Amino acid sequence: MDLPVALLGGTGKLGPGLAMRFARAGVPVLVGSREAEKGVAAAGDINEKLRATLVDFVPVEGMDNAWAATRARVAVITVPFEGQAAMLPGLAESLAGKVVVSTAVPMRFDEVLGPVHVDVAEGSAAQQVAALLPKSSIAAGFHSVSSAELKKLSRSLDEHVVITGDDDDAKRTAMELVRLLPGARPVDGGRLHGARYSEQLTVLLLSVNAIYRTHSGIKLTNLPPDPQSEG
Amino acid sequence: MDLPVALLGGTGKLGPGLAMRFARAGVPVLVGSREAEKGVAAAGDINEKLRATLVDFVPVEGMDNAWAATRARVAVITVPFEGQAAMLPGLAESLAGKVVVSTAVPMRFDEVLGPVHVDVAEGSAAQQVAALLPKSSIAAGFHSVSSAELKKLSRSLDEHVVITGDDDDAKRTAMELVRLLPGARPVDGGRLHGARYSEQLTVLLLSVNAIYRTHSGIKLTNLPPDPQSEG
Repeated sequence: MDLPVALLGGTGKLGPGLAMRFARAGVPVLVGSREAEKGVAAAGDINEKLRATLVDFVPVEGMDNAWAATRARVAVITVPFEGQAAMLPGLAESLAGKVVVSTAVPMRFDEVLGPVHVDVAEGSAAQQVAALLPKSSIAAGFHSVSSAELKKLSRSLDEHVVITGDDDDAKRTAMELVRLLPGARPVDGGRLHGARYSEQLTVLLLSVNAIYRTHSGIKLTNLPPDPQSEG
Repeated sequence: MDLPVALLGGTGKLGPGLAMRFARAGVPVLVGSREAEKGVAAAGDINEKLRATLVDFVPVEGMDNAWAATRARVAVITVPFEGQAAMLPGLAESLAGKVVVSTAVPMRFDEVLGPVHVDVAEGSAAQQVAALLPKSSIAAGFHSVSSAELKKLSRSLDEHVVITGDDDDAKRTAMELVRLLPGARPVDGGRLHGARYSEQLTVLLLSVNAIYRTHSGIKLTNLPPDPQSEG
């Protein structure tokens, strides 16, 4: 895989868990934030938590998003959907020619209905990323992975992660990132157009989570064995 | 559960598999078709297949949809989405006060993208059913269950079936229907609004099926044990 991996907006919900899991897998991680100090602080916090586990890891570095985007070979967008349209245009040149993974789920909480999906003009958060980063190669995934479960480092994830994308290299890279998470198996979900289904599935999982008081994920049944993973 | 169960448009893809599984579970099934002769023929065919398995079952009966809707206590709509708007208005009075389960997935095959979801004015196939049957209690589910796997009667399904609905009784009934399928576990997916996510998930599964040459289903991870099922 092309390294290092940037987590853009990596100080939020999904970023720290991914950073810790990737760092334990030996991957150099760059945590980007809107403000450099927050990126530095988040990286310090992550490294402290990792040291406490007494398991080997590559120390995480943190700074602002522009720094992370410039130095990275692969970037994962871990900012909430509402933030990506403001963040990405300024990073488009730094991310040109690189693989960028979209993870956002456009949603809101409705008083009556609970979690509901919010329509995106481009069709999905992932397709909005593709529109904002025309020189990058886009894949989408990690939508159904619980941030809370990701942070429980002693736990194997035991779930599948559907990856969609129109660019084979981007899709392969995103699937390699999934394989860095113990117990997780990447599943090829086809074209980037399908990211909308994967994003909306997460809204359904959030309803299930509220009812069963859990952090659910998904597994697909009847898949052939994955030759490259044990998940 | 209120019996018997009608399968409206039950001669299509999903109907025969459900009919056979329900009949083996001891449930009287009424297979409805647009034409009475087709309903009769489908029931005869289903009973013949069931007899060949040498396992006990309640013989399935078949006729037209109006007959099935009138005699049933619970109805499952197993006609393709394109057919339901024409079929349901004429059955609305017969289905008044009854539980009706929506299973359709609004979709089409695109030459470039493969299977794609088709937007529904009401928000989902299930919400269209609710609009067309204002005096019935609607739940939605079975979207992700493969018709092909359902027909392999010797196979346990080993999958979860997400049920959505605004009416508790309808949801409970739909979940009981899932429990009739060996190996399947119902999962409460919240309000009927969420049927759109469950319907679209199936489009994603069809892309996965094309890539992996399989008939995939889903399981949710991290759920608490289901007190009423072994699935």
